Parts: sequence; structure tokens; C-alpha cells
Amino acid sequence: MSVTQFEIRAGAYFDSVVLMQLQRELAALPGVEDAGIVMATSANRELLAGSDLLPPAAGQAASDDLLIVVKAADAATAQAALSQVDSLIQKRRPGASQSFRPRSLATAARMLPAAHWVLISVPGRYAADVARTALDAGKNIFLYSDNVSLEDELVLKRQARDAGLLLMGPDCGTAIINGVGLGFANRVRQGAIGLIGASGTGLQAITSRIHALGAGVSQAIGTGGRDLSPEVGGITALQALDLLRRDADTAVIVLVSKPPAPEVAAHLLAAAQNVGKPVVVYFMGYPPTLGRVGDRLIMALSLEDAAQQAVSCLGQARLPASDTAPPASGYVRGLFSGGTLAYEAMLAWQGLLLPLYSNVPLRPAQALPQLTRSQGHTILDMGADAFTQGRLHPMLDHEQRLRRLRQEAADVEVGLIVLDVVLGEGAHPHPAAELAPAIAAVKAQRPVEVAVLLVGTDADPQGLSDQAERLVAAGAVVYYKMSALVETVARRWGAQVVTDFPSVPLTTLQPPLAAINIGLESFYDSLTAQGAAAVHVEWRPPAGGNEKMMALLGQLKRK
Amino acid sequence: MSVTQFEIRAGAYFDSVVLMQLQRELAALPGVEDAGIVMATSANRELLAGSDLLPPAAGQAASDDLLIVVKAADAATAQAALSQVDSLIQKRRPGASQSFRPRSLATAARMLPAAHWVLISVPGRYAADVARTALDAGKNIFLYSDNVSLEDELVLKRQARDAGLLLMGPDCGTAIINGVGLGFANRVRQGAIGLIGASGTGLQAITSRIHALGAGVSQAIGTGGRDLSPEVGGITALQALDLLRRDADTAVIVLVSKPPAPEVAAHLLAAAQNVGKPVVVYFMGYPPTLGRVGDRLIMALSLEDAAQQAVSCLGQARLPASDTAPPASGYVRGLFSGGTLAYEAMLAWQGLLLPLYSNVPLRPAQALPQLTRSQGHTILDMGADAFTQGRLHPMLDHEQRLRRLRQEAADVEVGLIVLDVVLGEGAHPHPAAELAPAIAAVKAQRPVEVAVLLVGTDADPQGLSDQAERLVAAGAVVYYKMSALVETVARRWGAQVVTDFPSVPLTTLQPPLAAINIGLESFYDSLTAQGAAAVHVEWRPPAGGNEKMMALLGQLKRK
Repeated sequence: MSVTQFEIRAGAYFDSVVLMQLQRELAALPGVEDAGIVMATSANRELLAGSDLLPPAAGQAASDDLLIVVKAADAATAQAALSQVDSLIQKRRPGASQSFRPRSLATAARMLPAAHWVLISVPGRYAADVARTALDAGKNIFLYSDNVSLEDELVLKRQARDAGLLLMGPDCGTAIINGVGLGFANRVRQGAIGLIGASGTGLQAITSRIHALGAGVSQAIGTGGRDLSPEVGGITALQALDLLRRDADTAVIVLVSKPPAPEVAAHLLAAAQNVGKPVVVYFMGYPPTLGRVGDRLIMALSLEDAAQQAVSCLGQARLPASDTAPPASGYVRGLFSGGTLAYEAMLAWQGLLLPLYSNVPLRPAQALPQLTRSQGHTILDMGADAFTQGRLHPMLDHEQRLRRLRQEAADVEVGLIVLDVVLGEGAHPHPAAELAPAIAAVKAQRPVEVAVLLVGTDADPQGLSDQAERLVAAGAVVYYKMSALVETVARRWGAQVVTDFPSVPLTTLQPPLAAINIGLESFYDSLTAQGAAAVHVEWRPPAGGNEKMMALLGQLKRK
Repeated sequence: MSVTQFEIRAGAYFDSVVLMQLQRELAALPGVEDAGIVMATSANRELLAGSDLLPPAAGQAASDDLLIVVKAADAATAQAALSQVDSLIQKRRPGASQSFRPRSLATAARMLPAAHWVLISVPGRYAADVARTALDAGKNIFLYSDNVSLEDELVLKRQARDAGLLLMGPDCGTAIINGVGLGFANRVRQGAIGLIGASGTGLQAITSRIHALGAGVSQAIGTGGRDLSPEVGGITALQALDLLRRDADTAVIVLVSKPPAPEVAAHLLAAAQNVGKPVVVYFMGYPPTLGRVGDRLIMALSLEDAAQQAVSCLGQARLPASDTAPPASGYVRGLFSGGTLAYEAMLAWQGLLLPLYSNVPLRPAQALPQLTRSQGHTILDMGADAFTQGRLHPMLDHEQRLRRLRQEAADVEVGLIVLDVVLGEGAHPHPAAELAPAIAAVKAQRPVEVAVLLVGTDADPQGLSDQAERLVAAGAVVYYKMSALVETVARRWGAQVVTDFPSVPLTTLQPPLAAINIGLESFYDSLTAQGAAAVHVEWRPPAGGNEKMMALLGQLKRK
């Protein structure tokens, strides 16, 4: 029959990692069968009870008390184990070399004025207050804590953005800033690949792979898992993109996220294609797009592929200016006869032409309200039933498309009209004979551009080059590859994302890293082990964890 | 003031392509302002009325009458145009060299006994009956007609499958069989790439691109757009996959579809990975997967990419047997600490491990009903809130995962347990010290296999190779790359799709192609222009298009 003994230390506070380590060491002492050492919140007391480690008398411990429970073969062994707790606590602090431990952020900031960064890993319900204090003090934040409300996240991120500060998180697991890993981070070579991630293990897997491939990382900026939600709208990711765009040490950018909100993903893609450096994007679960848009936007298929693509980009020269046509204005209107081609154009342009509408929408918000009237950028599958009622397929009969071509060309908001022409057996015997005069006619009226995606072979009965020549003579630009069409259209008509927030200063990324740590001691140990200057704040729950008192204090502070 | 004149030819029938060509020629005659020539169905009469081409007296034309309307500057010009209709009809038949035109499929089949194929392009409401007759006669079918009901499609496809016949369509726009294009098809080089497509322009774009890249096509099999719907379940695609698997002239297979039903897509992926030839898959809009599963399954990003990947495969040797571990049985259980890694595993295995469940499902059907009990193949993100309530993250605290490892290992249905281990700053200082003994212990109990995905670098404080060695010593197989893990698991534990239908005989693909054409004359012209043996059936609507009579006839036939 085992014996369970316990000890309550009123008001003693240790973080959860320290407690887990202590518990492991206690349980490993000779004769000890099981042990628990927790802050005695009701949740933790329940967990102990579930493991048969909560003697009735221990139930009196309060949430800001440290509760230590040992189950052993006999009372003497249990007592001996309890008596070793203090030496275990002392022993496990070899790295905590900091002689004086400030109790406030303000004091810590005076001790290490160079600290641009604050790492916050206190329990979630206290984290927003700590973060607010850090922002008020002008610090960038790595916010590891989870269970921060979405409301708090928004308020904090907006405050950070308006002040030109980065707030990574909440629930940010990993980052590498100025060569120093924050939170969970692999040790990797420094190099020219900058990363932005709304996915902790995603960033870790990619940075590890980049290292294995012989390349290195300039910065890895975490955003927290909710950053690409519709509510937050990618505030941190957009700041980070802008920052890495300006950072001379970053040649290639990787953007990774667990399933993002489609509208936020679209906005980020639009921003990414304007960066002027190659951006490798891996949006997990996002409606797949074409693999790449020129040399500017590369959609990866996996974490591994993202790393590989980024490293491949490194080997290449600056973005080539192969296509020198200038950016253009107006909307794009795609009038497709091939349903698959229309759908592929939607997949390709979903994040690059904004707003985008279609009769083959990828998501409901893209549905064109009235088929007869285009709006914004519009892609039409004109082979769809609604267009072909009582008519032949547009690959055979151009009448409907010609009418729509004239309608779109007459719209002063339109800058480009895209047509596909599919040659081959069964198709119209001479499409250019009908399309080319119509194209020439609309171009004579107004300066509208016309692009034709020509699908066919040099063996097709219509004559591929003859068709192309006639279309070109009429003033159309002819493309044989969707990828080339997609790239030019994205580059010339693509969304321009306005960066209407103060830039995060480049000095934020200048080594050496100096940081203040509030929360898990192990993060402080990790900072100093990596050679960073750091100060650990001896944080404990305000007002001894008493929630009513906290609320009162919070109200006072905000007045 | 223009004059409109018309003519009604009772019981004359022409197909819609012929009529469109006649209309174009009529409208181009000198002095003619506009013209219409249609079968006088109510829909067509409405269209004419909409173009102001339906004089009141012409409204009496019945649906099996040919109605010709000409609008011209004066009555004499209009009349002159009408009088030219017969010569236009004669003139536009240079290719229709067939002297005797049978009126039934049976007669046509006697005229060309070698014809394995029937092309059907009659109006949709007649198409199912024609197709049934062709199947009864043991013919393979290219069913161009649309507006065939889903119910009819299912009945016809099941009949075809059970008889070892291919039924491409309904609404099948394109195919290339034995080097001859059917319907809309580009003229391409013959070669070793076989295609299967539930997307007409998709197949055309890919085959054209393959040709442009210097390679060629063995067969291109259309399936019709609804084949990959949940109702039809990919009947034709699965037959085609099995056929091209056995076809010695096909070295690489391309499978393309507009957005497929996820469950059908999964089934097809599972079938594709067992083909024994590289299969390049482009499922538009399908939840993205990892780029490739070894050399057997390559997920393309675009039509262009599908062509490129297929051509690249051609240059390679037969599938290398790099990993020689034999196929294994039992379910796979993934216990991940990294949420992104769990999600990526879901993306990779969604079509290969069936049935697949998770607490991070890609679609509702994959949701694990009870978190505490795995079923089928199961992937768990054990860092999710439901698992970490009151606990540290599993990257720091292995207790939960170790407990689940033991639970899964004790399940006799389990063949493989997959764990991830993420090293680096902040993570557990020595994961192998806890995981390796547990792995060794469960393997000592039962012959269960354990795979570990190890994420980290050679600079990480835990020591990458030391951790790996300990895990291997405990009996785990260690992977550094998700792609390698995915491939081995898919190959050894992946779904085996049983082909439980009669094979389509390889003789179906043996040139030369001989076909019977029922419907659009232009398809007959195209067949003969390509050198195929063909017979055109002089089809006209049964019972003169009278719907009541048709229904009666249909009932009689089915008795």
C-alpha cells in the first residue's frame, strides 16, 4: 500500500516548464512511485485527482499556491523526496546566471536598453496586459502565450502596426531573428532566405530543410496561427513582407501558412507579387493555383518543396525583365470557350486580380451576380449552359463571344480582353477569319488590349501559325502557354497592394539580438545559450493570481 | 424598309452544325441582311423571334420542320436567297463521299463490321436510346451529346462496364483513339503518353503541349464531365486506367479532371498509385497534395505542368525499386506533435490511405468521431487544444504521446505508428531518451512497425544523428523528409483498389480505327479526313420528333 504526502507553498510561483522538469525529477527519485508539482489551480487539482495524486487535505491549496505531491512506498521515502525539492530547484538553474532578477519590464528595460524585443510566455490570461506594456515601451514582441482572445489580438496588432513594431503571435511557437532562435527553433546557418510563417512546425521544417540543402536563413518571422484569419487580415504577415522586402540581407522570401482564409490569402498573394524578390508561397489547403507566376511568385507543394524552391531561387540572378511591357490599368475580362481553361485562369488569378468574378467561381464571393454584365475583373466560361442554350458551343460558333467582345471593349473600365482559341478536328475551320476583324474593329474604337490563348498544334487543319499571324495582325497578343499569359496579366494588371502603415524600421533586424524574457525560464536559458543579450523578468501573476483583484487593477490602469 | 421571307420544309432534318454553316452562307449572300435556318422547335422559334426573324405566319412550323428565314432589302433579293438553299446544301458536302447512307445502326454495322466504335452526337433527348442500341450491338461509344440524364448515364455506364466496353461521355468533347481524333481533337504525334480526362479542353491543351514538347500520345480517353461525380464514381476513368495499365504502347499516364468529388478523387488516386507506370494527375481545385509520391504518382499544378511532367517521365527508366520493403498490412496511426506536419500528412495521404480519419480533417467525412479511439487509418495532431488541456505541448512533454503509442500498439489492427520528433531550441532536450525505450517496449510486445519523421539540423543542441541512432536502435525507421515517409507508407500501406469489372479488351485500342457516326456530319468528315474507316448514319428524330410517339416507342422497345 503506497503513501501519499504533500506540501503547499503559499504564493510560490514557477512556470510550467520548470514544474514539468521538477515533476520528472521528483518521480525519478528512488522509491517514488508518482509525483505531481503544480500551481494549484482548479484545472491542475483535477488533473492530480485524475492520477490519484490529490489527498483530500491538499484540496485546500489556492490557485497561487505551489502544490507538491509525492506517492511512495512508505512515508519516510515520500518525506525524503519532498525534502529534496529545494535542492532540485537550485540544481536545475545552471544557466540562470542572472544575479539580479527584475520584477518588472520597466526595470528590465533599464538593465538592457539595447533590447528591442520582448519574449512573452506567461499564462494566456495575463499575456495581453504584458504585451500592452511592452508595446507601450516601444518593444517588438514574440508572444508565445496562447489563449489570448481574438479581440485582444486585434487591438494589440493594430497598436503594434501603427507604431512600426512587430508583434509575432499570440501562440507564436517559433522565430529566428538576427540569427537567434526564439521559442522553438532549429539552429540553422545564416543566409539569404527570409521566412514568414503562420505555422510553427512549418517554419521549423522549412528552415531545417534549407540548412540541410546547404543554404541559410536571414530571418524567420512567426505571425501566430490566427494572423491569416479574416478578422486579423494578415496584419503581421503584411508587415513582415514589407520588412523583408526592404531587408538587403534577404534575397528570397518564403511565406507559409496553415489553411489561410481565402480572401486574406488572395490579398497576401497580391502583396507578394509586388515585392520585387522571388516569393515562395506554401498555403496549405488553399485552392491550388498554377505552380508559379513568372519568377516572382512560386507556389510550393509541400514544406520540403518550399525549401527546395527557395534554395533554387538563390542560385538565380535578379528577376529578369524579359517582358518589358509597362503596367497597365483597367479591368481584365476573360471570354473563354474552354471550360477547363476558364477554370484554370480562375485558379491562376484568384489571388492576383482583385476583385475577381466569374460564372465558374472558386468560392461564393466570386460569383458574378448578372451573367450579362461583367464587373471588376471577370472570367467567363462561355461554353457553360447558360450561354449555349439553343446555340452551338463557342468553339464552333463565335457569335456570342463576338457580341460580348464588343460589349466589353465598349466598357471604359476595361483594359484587357482575353480570348481562348482552340484549334483541331471538330473545331471551327477558321476562327481567325471571324475573330481577327472583330478584334481589329474594337481596337480601332478604343485603346483596349486583346490577348489570345491559342491552343493547337502545327499539325492542326486550321494552321497554327497562320491563325496566330492573322490574330497578331489584328492587334492581339498571342500566347501559346497559359503560364506566360498568366504572368503578363498578373504583372501588368495585377492588384497593387498599398502599404498604408508605418514601416517596421530595418534596425529591428540588426544584430546582435537583445531581448527581455517574461515567462518560461527555459526561453531565457535558450537565448543566453545562443549568445544573445537577455534579461529575465521574475514574473508572477499580478495580485497573486486573484482574478477579481486583477480585473480591478486592469480597470485602474486603463483609466 | 427590309423584307422578311420564309420557307417551311416539312420533315426535313439537318444537324445543328450543318444548319449553322448554311445560315452563315445564307447571311453572306449579296443583299441579305440577316438569315435563320433552324429546326423549328419552340426554343429555336423563340431565338428567331428575339432576332426579329420570325414572321407571324412562320410560327406554324412544327418541331420536325426545317424553317428558313431571310431578311433582305427587297422581296426579290430575299426570294433569290431562299432559292439558293438547295445548291448551298449540295455544295457544302464535298467530304460526304458516302454514296449510300444507312438509316440504322444495324445496317451501318453490317456495312463496316470492323467498326468497334460508335460516335453519337444526336440531340440529347435521343442520345440515351441510340447509345443503348450501340451497347447492345457490342460497340464502344464516344457520346458527344449533352443533356443526357444522370440516371441514363449510370445505367449506360454500368451496362458498358459489365460488357467490357468503353463509354466516353455523355458530353464528351474529345478523344484520340488509335491515332484518330474524335469530336474536338488536336492532331498530335503518336507516342507513349496515354491520357484520361474528365475535361475536354483540358485534354486538348495537354495533348497539344505534349506535341509541342516533341513527345506524343498513345490514347486520349475522355470520360465525360460527370464521370468523377459521387453518383457515377469514376466508372469510365477506372476502366480507362486499367486499360492503359495493360496497354504496352503506353508508358506514362496522365489523368486530368475538372473539380472531382473528393471521395472519387481519393479512390482514383489509390487506383493510380497501383498502376505500375508513372501517373501524372491534375485534379483541378482538389485539395492540394504533396507534389509527388515517389515515381508513381505525380501531382501536376497546371495543364502545362501535366504535359511537362509526363514528358519528363518518358525520359526516365522504369520505376526504380529503391525501397524494397514489402507491402504491409494493418492500419497507419500518425501521432504528430507538429500541427503543420499532421496537416501535411493528411494532404499527402488523403487519397492513398483509405479510410482516413483525423482531428484535423480536410473534409467532414474524415472527422474522427472519438478523439480517444482511432479508427481505420488515423492522423492525430496531438498539439491540438483537446489534447493539451492543462498540459505542456507534446514537443516538450511526451507523456500523452507515449500513452497513445502504447494504446495504438496494443491494437491488433495497427500495422504502423508514425511519430514526428522536432528538435531545436526550446524543444525537449532529449526526446529519444523517452521515446526510444517506449518504442522498443511496444515492438517487443507485437510486430508493429514504427516510423519517425525527424525534423532538425546537425547544429541542433539535441544532436540530430545521436537522436536518430537511438531511435533506430529501438527499432524505428527514421525519415528526414516527409516525401520519403509519404512514399513508403503509401506504397506499403496504401489502398489496394480491386478491379472487379471485366477488362476492356486491348483489341479496342488496335489500329486502324473504324467507326460508325450518328449525329453531326462534321464528325464523319473529320474521321474520313484523318483516314479512318467510317460510316455515317442518316439519322433523324424517331417518329419525326414527336415526343409522345417517342415515349410510346421507347416503352414498346423496353418490353
